[in-house]
Parts: sequence; C-alpha cells; structure tokens
Amino acid sequence: MTNIEYLTSYVNQFVETIKKAGVKHIVMCPGSRSTPLAYGFAKSEGFAFYRQTDERSAAYFALGIAKATKEPVVLLCTSGTAAANFFPAIVEAFYARVPLLVVTADRPHELREVGAPQAIDQIHLFGKHVKWSVDFPLPEDHAESLNFLERHIHRAVSTSRTLPMGPVHINMPFREPLLLNMEQALPTTEVQVSEIGKLVPSQDFTEWYMDLLMREEKGILIVGDSIHSTKGFWDFARMLKWPVLVDPLSNLRTSVPVDCMDLCIDQYDAILKNDAFKQVAMPSVVIRFGAQPVSKPLTLFLKACKPDVYIVVDESPIFRDSIHLVTHHAQVEATSLWIPMEEKQVSSYLNHWSKTNDIATKHIQTYIETEEDEGALAGILFEALPNGVDLFASSSMPIRDVDTFFNKTTKDVQVYANRGTNGIDGVVSSALGVQAATNRPGYLLIGDLAFLHDVNGLIVSRFHETDSTIVIMNNDGGGIFSYLPQSTETNYFEHLFGTPTGLEFSHVAAMYDAQYDAVHSKDAFEQVLKQPKIKDIRIIEVFTNRQVNTETHRKLWTAISKELDTIWKA
Amino acid sequence: MTNIEYLTSYVNQFVETIKKAGVKHIVMCPGSRSTPLAYGFAKSEGFAFYRQTDERSAAYFALGIAKATKEPVVLLCTSGTAAANFFPAIVEAFYARVPLLVVTADRPHELREVGAPQAIDQIHLFGKHVKWSVDFPLPEDHAESLNFLERHIHRAVSTSRTLPMGPVHINMPFREPLLLNMEQALPTTEVQVSEIGKLVPSQDFTEWYMDLLMREEKGILIVGDSIHSTKGFWDFARMLKWPVLVDPLSNLRTSVPVDCMDLCIDQYDAILKNDAFKQVAMPSVVIRFGAQPVSKPLTLFLKACKPDVYIVVDESPIFRDSIHLVTHHAQVEATSLWIPMEEKQVSSYLNHWSKTNDIATKHIQTYIETEEDEGALAGILFEALPNGVDLFASSSMPIRDVDTFFNKTTKDVQVYANRGTNGIDGVVSSALGVQAATNRPGYLLIGDLAFLHDVNGLIVSRFHETDSTIVIMNNDGGGIFSYLPQSTETNYFEHLFGTPTGLEFSHVAAMYDAQYDAVHSKDAFEQVLKQPKIKDIRIIEVFTNRQVNTETHRKLWTAISKELDTIWKA
Repeated sequence: MTNIEYLTSYVNQFVETIKKAGVKHIVMCPGSRSTPLAYGFAKSEGFAFYRQTDERSAAYFALGIAKATKEPVVLLCTSGTAAANFFPAIVEAFYARVPLLVVTADRPHELREVGAPQAIDQIHLFGKHVKWSVDFPLPEDHAESLNFLERHIHRAVSTSRTLPMGPVHINMPFREPLLLNMEQALPTTEVQVSEIGKLVPSQDFTEWYMDLLMREEKGILIVGDSIHSTKGFWDFARMLKWPVLVDPLSNLRTSVPVDCMDLCIDQYDAILKNDAFKQVAMPSVVIRFGAQPVSKPLTLFLKACKPDVYIVVDESPIFRDSIHLVTHHAQVEATSLWIPMEEKQVSSYLNHWSKTNDIATKHIQTYIETEEDEGALAGILFEALPNGVDLFASSSMPIRDVDTFFNKTTKDVQVYANRGTNGIDGVVSSALGVQAATNRPGYLLIGDLAFLHDVNGLIVSRFHETDSTIVIMNNDGGGIFSYLPQSTETNYFEHLFGTPTGLEFSHVAAMYDAQYDAVHSKDAFEQVLKQPKIKDIRIIEVFTNRQVNTETHRKLWTAISKELDTIWKA
Repeated sequence: MTNIEYLTSYVNQFVETIKKAGVKHIVMCPGSRSTPLAYGFAKSEGFAFYRQTDERSAAYFALGIAKATKEPVVLLCTSGTAAANFFPAIVEAFYARVPLLVVTADRPHELREVGAPQAIDQIHLFGKHVKWSVDFPLPEDHAESLNFLERHIHRAVSTSRTLPMGPVHINMPFREPLLLNMEQALPTTEVQVSEIGKLVPSQDFTEWYMDLLMREEKGILIVGDSIHSTKGFWDFARMLKWPVLVDPLSNLRTSVPVDCMDLCIDQYDAILKNDAFKQVAMPSVVIRFGAQPVSKPLTLFLKACKPDVYIVVDESPIFRDSIHLVTHHAQVEATSLWIPMEEKQVSSYLNHWSKTNDIATKHIQTYIETEEDEGALAGILFEALPNGVDLFASSSMPIRDVDTFFNKTTKDVQVYANRGTNGIDGVVSSALGVQAATNRPGYLLIGDLAFLHDVNGLIVSRFHETDSTIVIMNNDGGGIFSYLPQSTETNYFEHLFGTPTGLEFSHVAAMYDAQYDAVHSKDAFEQVLKQPKIKDIRIIEVFTNRQVNTETHRKLWTAISKELDTIWKA
C-alpha cells in the first residue's frame, strides 16, 4: 500500500470503530497535526460535529455534552500546548465522572524532544486525572495494525463508559504528509461493543438492607450529584416513607410526582441551621446515594448526630466521605438498591421534617417577594423558568442560591453544575455544551467573574446554533469571599479577594450579536424575563451589591431559625 | 505557639526567603486556600505584586515578566482546577526555559481524595514539564520546620534559575483557619543564595575551537532564541568575519553596531530559497548558538549541505537538533565561547552573503512600498517603531512576518515571542507581562484567532497600568493553514481550518476602555501609526485577506529568486 492508502485505512478504521461503539459527538479544535482525524470525522456521516478555537473552552463544551448525554464525547486537538489547555476540563471530568475520549495528535517519535516546534512530551500528559492513557504507534502497513486499533478504541470507549465514568486519553502520532484519500472505501469492523460496567449488590447485603428499611423509623435518604440514573427512585421512596433530602444536582427536585412532594425535603440547608429542630431530626440510619450535597449545615448535622448506620452507595472504590462517618460503603449502582417493597406507614418523624420544611419554604417565598438581593433575584428566575428547559448553575454563589431558592416542583427542569472540582472555569462552555446536546432551551446562572473567565465559551456560537439565556449576577468581583473569615481583614481584602474589574458585558453581547438587557431592580428583572427571546444568545446582566447579599442572606437564616425555635424549643 | 502564630511564622519565613533569594515579581490569582500566602506577600514590602482572575492568563502574564527579567517569578493560586489552568504556560516555560516558581495552595491531607470540594490530586500535577516538583508538609510548630522551608525555597529558586532555566512547582497544603497575625515580627533568614549555574568549556575544547575559527573561511554563525546573554557577541563576530544568520528572537537584529551591519544576515529565509545561491553559500563549518531559527529554508539548506563541522552551543543536555546534523554538542554558556581573537580578513565568502542579503533587502523594501498585504503592513509597523520599545510577536504568521520584514537595525527594539512550544495561547498576557517588567512601550503583533484566544489577558489592565499597543491582523480565521498542503482539500478546508468567526474587536476595545482604530488600507495604517497614543491600551485592528496574503508572499519569493538567478546561476 502507498502511504496515503494506509494512512487513510488507519483513520477510516479509527473513525468507524468510534461510530460503531456508539459515540455520537465530536468536538474538534483546528490544527495541523490532527488533520487526518479532522478529515476522517468530517467525511463520515452520522456524527454531530462541533468546532471551537479556544481549546480550554472546547474541552468544557465537550464536558457539557457528555454530562447531558452520559455518553463519551470525542475531544480532538493538535500537538503542543493545545493539549495542555484541555487539562482543567479533564480534571473536572475525572472528579465529576464524565466520559470523554480525549484524542491528542502528536508528532512522530523522531521529532519528539529534539527542539521541533509544537512538540511537547504528551505521554501521560494528564497524569492521574484520566482513567486510562495510551500512546498509539505511527500508522503502518502491517497486518496487526488495524486490528490493534479497533480493540484499543473499544477498550478506550468502554473504559470511559464503565461506572464510575471518566476521561480517557489517546495520543496519536502522525508523520507528514497528513492528507487522506477522501474516496477510499470504509472498513467493516469486527469487535462487539461491551456493556456498561454494572455493579450489583450481593444477596447477603440486600437481605440485611431490606430488613433495615422495614425496621427503622428514623431513617433519611440523601441524594446527591453524579448518580448515573434516577429512574425508579420515587417508586422506592413512596413505599419507604423516609424524608428524602435532595441536592438540586440530583435532579430529583424537579419532575417530582405530586404524591411524593411531602417526602421531598429541599430546605434542609435552612432548617438544619436551627439547633432545636436538629434535636428532633436526629436519624438512626442515613443512606446517601451519589456525591456529598452542597449544603454545609447538612454536613455539620450529620457530623453532630453520628448515625448508627450511614450507608454510602457509590459506583467507585473511592470513599467519598470527607467527614469520616460512613459505616457501610456499598460499591453498587444506586438503582440496584431501589428495590420494590411493602408500603410503610407515614411516621411522625417524616411529618416533623415536612412540616418544618414547609415553614422554611414559606419564608423563602416571602423573601423572594420582599427582598432585592441575588437570592431573591435567583428565586424570581427559577419561578419564571418554563417547563422543559435546562438550568446550568455556575460554581461559587449561583449553585448555593439554587440550593436555597430553587424549590421542589413538578416542572421538568434539569439542573446541571460542575461539581467534580467546583471550578469557576469553563462554565459558559459547559452550559452551551449541555444545550447543544439536549436541544432544549438552556439557562445559565453565573457571576461576573466566572462569566469573564470563560467569555471565550461564546465563540462556539459563531459555528453552531444555540438557544441559551445567560443571567449574569454582576456584583463586580468575587462575592463568595464576603462570607468567609478572611473578609474581616479590611486592609487587603478588597484588593486580594474582591478583585472588582469594573467591567460590564454589554460589549460582549454586541460582539456576539446577543440580545442584551441591563437590569438594576427586581421589578425590571421580572419585566425582562417576560419579554420574548429573539436571538440565539440572550444575556441578562443584573447589577447587584456584594455587601447587601451577605446581610440579607443572614437575615433570612435568622428569621427561619426564630420561627423554628417557637415550635421545637422544648 | 498558637495555630495562628506558627502559621504566621511559616508564611513569613516563606515570603522573606523568597525575597532574600532575589525574587521581585509576584503574580497572584484570588482564591481562598491560598489566603495565608496572599496576605503574606501583600504585607511584605519590596515586591511588585500583580493580580489576574483568569489563571491561564495569569500564568502567561508571569511568563512574560520572567522572559523579560530572566528571573524567577512567583505564580500563586488556590487549590483545584485553578492550578490546572496554569498548565499551558508552564509547558511553554519548560520548553522556552523561562524561570517560574509555581506555588499552588492545597487542602490538607485529610481532605484529599475524599470528595471534598476543590480538592484534586496536585502532587506532580504538571508532570514532566517542571524542573522540580515538591509537596510541602502542613505548617507545624516544630524546630526543623522553618529551617526546612528556607532550604527548600532556596533550592526551588536556584533550580529555576540554573541554566537551562525553567519552571519549578511547590505544592503547599494549609488547614483552616487561614488567617495570619498581621503584626507578628518578620524572621531573619540564614542561607546564602547560590550562583546561577554556569557551564564553562574545557581547555581542550577551547583550543580545538579557536584553531577551527582561525583556519576556516567558509564558516557561518547562527544565533537563535533562548540565549541567556548576548553580551560580547558583536566584539567576537567583528574579529571572526563570518556571516551571522540572526533569528529575530536572538535580539541581535536590533542595536547592531554600525560596523557590524555587513556581517548581519537577516534575509537568509528569502535568499536560501534560491538554488544557485545555495551552491555558493555552502559552509564547511556551522556554529549555532541557542534554539533552531524559525526559517524552514535555512533548515532545508543545512540538511542539503551537511557541513563537516556543526557545533551546537546549548546550556542543556537536550540535543536540540531535529534534523540530526550536529557533529559537536557543546553544553556550555554561549558567552563562554565568544573569546577574544586576532582580527581576520574580509573573505569573498562573506561578501557573497552580504551582497545577496542586500538584494533581498531591496526587494523587501519595494514590496513594503507597493504591496498591501500583511507582510507589507508588518513592514510599515516595524519601520514606525520608535527607539527603545519592545515588540512581542504572536506565534503563527506574525513571527514569520517578523522574520521576513523586520530588517536589521541600529535601533533598540527588543523582540519577544513564545517559541518554547509555539502556541497561540496566552500571547496577549505574555506581551503585557513583558511590558509590566520592562516598563517600556510595548507593541504586540497578533492575528485575530490568537487575540481572541487570550482576550482575557486584558483583564490585568483593570488592576495594573500598562503601555501597550496591540496590532491585530484580522483576516477572520487561521491564516497559516493556507500555506499548508491541507488547503488543497476544498470541501472541508474552510470549515475545519479557516474557522472564520466573523468577530470584530471594537467591542473588546470599548469593554476595556482602549483607544481603537479600524484600518482597511496601508495608507490608513500609516496615518493611524502617526497619531498619538492616549490610553493605556491601544488596539489597531487591521482588516486583511487570507487569500491575498498567500499569493503576494509567493510573488515576493519568486521575484527575489529570479534576480539571484541572474547573478549566481553559472
């Protein structure tokens, strides 16, 4: 075979194997060394193919797609620092358990470490933050070559897809010339795609667990982020009748069945700040599915009551228990423990939780109606969300405001955030990636610093359609730091942590031809939300005040706690 | 001691040791875990202290400072993906041999790998792309603690400073509370700072080398990027009388002594495209100082003539010789081989080179006067540069246009670019970093994609003064790809490589309160360059055409080669 023939065979085999393994989405960053793969994917039909010129944003965009589809996404770039720009999103994907197939093109071995341009050491470039990393040989005209390629691609896709999911890195060297024969026939691939790795509990454990559920009255369920599937959860909880503390990212606060609304506790962050209620609420059994919730009061509550049995259900061998309370670590899929059972009675313990939750909810409602801070504004946004949309919450304050002000609802709103490592980087791209994958209207709630950090995430809108509404809470700097102890150091605080940039984003909207509104009051925000969306991207910039936010949030916690005292203080 | 006392002692010792080691510049990204270090540096006097909220840009900004000062710069961030955002600039620094002290704050060991937020595995996070990586213990009240800290900081600074220079990574865990006693007395540190590692040639080598220089007529010197010092070079070359091929990044094309102008060959890229001249120009000895030059024709020329002796002088044990021609690798400092010697006669070989160089220069001059493409526009810019400024050239086309259109001059203009890994990422930040360090007017020549990629580099202008003129060649997409073979694939080319975004940057200028001009012709560009600069940042956006650039550049090479044929074709 000629060079161009076997390079084309190799690339065709690569692309068709990836397609056969069920991968649908390809995110590509333009570059020279990756030319054969770019042409290979472009000429093959059946892929959704995205481009982005900022590799950091591209990786977060792919993360968003993979987060929404729960399927591996190919993320492709050329050699050199291009690949290093993928690093933040790969680390996020590793900890958030999001499947990615990171494919980095590389120079051939004779151009590595000899001063050739754009040649860096790409072997194990992402260190321990990928599930698997492999350096492929150069394409060659050898009987074993295509066979090897096919098996390794299947292994890579399966590895990224096996629970806990995560990123996989494939490094692929190419020697010039980099051109393909675009007419050459496609290969027929052989290997069958393996099943997603399923982790099933043993019979002994299941018996002990069912007995526990039937016997115990004072039990709570906690559902966090990163659960692979929530299907069947409410059928299980409806029978069990334990209070269910749902983190917003579990996506069990939305689409709640009407007859399960009383079981669903969404104000635990507020009510677990009250000591009297905490006495009443002490559980003897806690079962947590998925990651630790965002709420700090919940963590402190669990730490204080040290339950006799605390089961964490998790697909990974990593013990996600930073407070060292877990008594049983069940390394199984969450769904495998949502077992059909006899319906239990409503307990007074459940009633205490739901009654207290209702009181907090009432306060939150009043707060949204009467206050003007970021919490109240977030509440206004959440109430205005139509059925059938997605909400991406930035790290830092937005996810905390979702936790407090996003009340349980029967509406279908899927909530997303990057909680693998909680970074404020790449948030715009991740949200646009989610939108591209679900094709539902996307909403993003974000602060000014996080928006600015990934303002290049908007570049993708020049290449692909989107339907995204971005609400920026512009308090000119880092709001979350005002809640932390270092804010008492008045000499340096604003300089080091507040970091006000004085920037406004009408210019960004103009640059990207986005619909834009500047909002300075709650009334104006309500009016703006009622106006129709007429562009691909809509930016609503809400100007808020960091000082006010801290004060009013604290007032809310005090008011709730005061009313709870009148009920629960013996 | 109380917690706060020994934490304060530890941080004070850290900061004062860094200061004593001669480090002047601190670039900090706001975050919580790094609070003790941020306060430590802020309260200590005598540092230049910079902030940037985008960590990727911050790292490239620090790179710019370190590149200009040739001294280690502290780059500080909090735990989590913040640190991963440093990766592209660290890889660049490693290959470009730029000293950085990367300090990442970390969670204490009990919060690592247990699902705590913003905790990733930071140990050896940057893999093989730092010279040294060390994970510090938690601060503790122990006799050896401060002593250990001082010695390790000295080792870190020395390692980054020893030739070849490069980045060093220090990971520092802190346990809450993160506050210092701001009044506590500063420590007196003990260890003396070690010398920069100097690599001196042996006597045997020196004798052989001097004999070679005196004996050979057909020798050339090549001077590339990454030479630690160019001091004494022209005194040496003036005696030797060999043609000197100077890469623009050697900074030997500017401030050329008048009596050395004939020795200085700056058009080798153009004249070595002509076969007839190449026959005349064949050297028997080549001595290269520093990195391989940008020019591809030069590389092909050396490959074709296989000189008997090809010495590469380099401080690093890495053999920078991607064409496998080097016969002698002298691992010594370049300056150590610029030895005083008897003045040699002007040879006909030198005359051939300088005469041919003059012809190419004349063509280039005519071209700048008559053409309108990016090359001619770059030529206009270079001629307009005042004495005593810095020019940062982006990777991709700008550095190539500098190579061709930036003629040797007695003017003092320092030229910078990121050639460690040739990335188009972080260019705006690196240029602003250079400007912050030298405090001279800074000019940046950059394409639209590279500018967009690091548009967040401008954030730093909200926190610190700058004097920067940014000339954007906006050809709406990736211009360099048009010169490569893949451009013949018409079906997919524009979609995959051209990647036009249709974006214009007047909006960016408005957002950052920059002086702005849009330029659509060469005349207009000349006029604009004559107008005074009245803001910290000035953006001149020059709209060009990718197709025209490729065609006119090719026309120039043909014209030069044709005239050289009339002289050198036997």
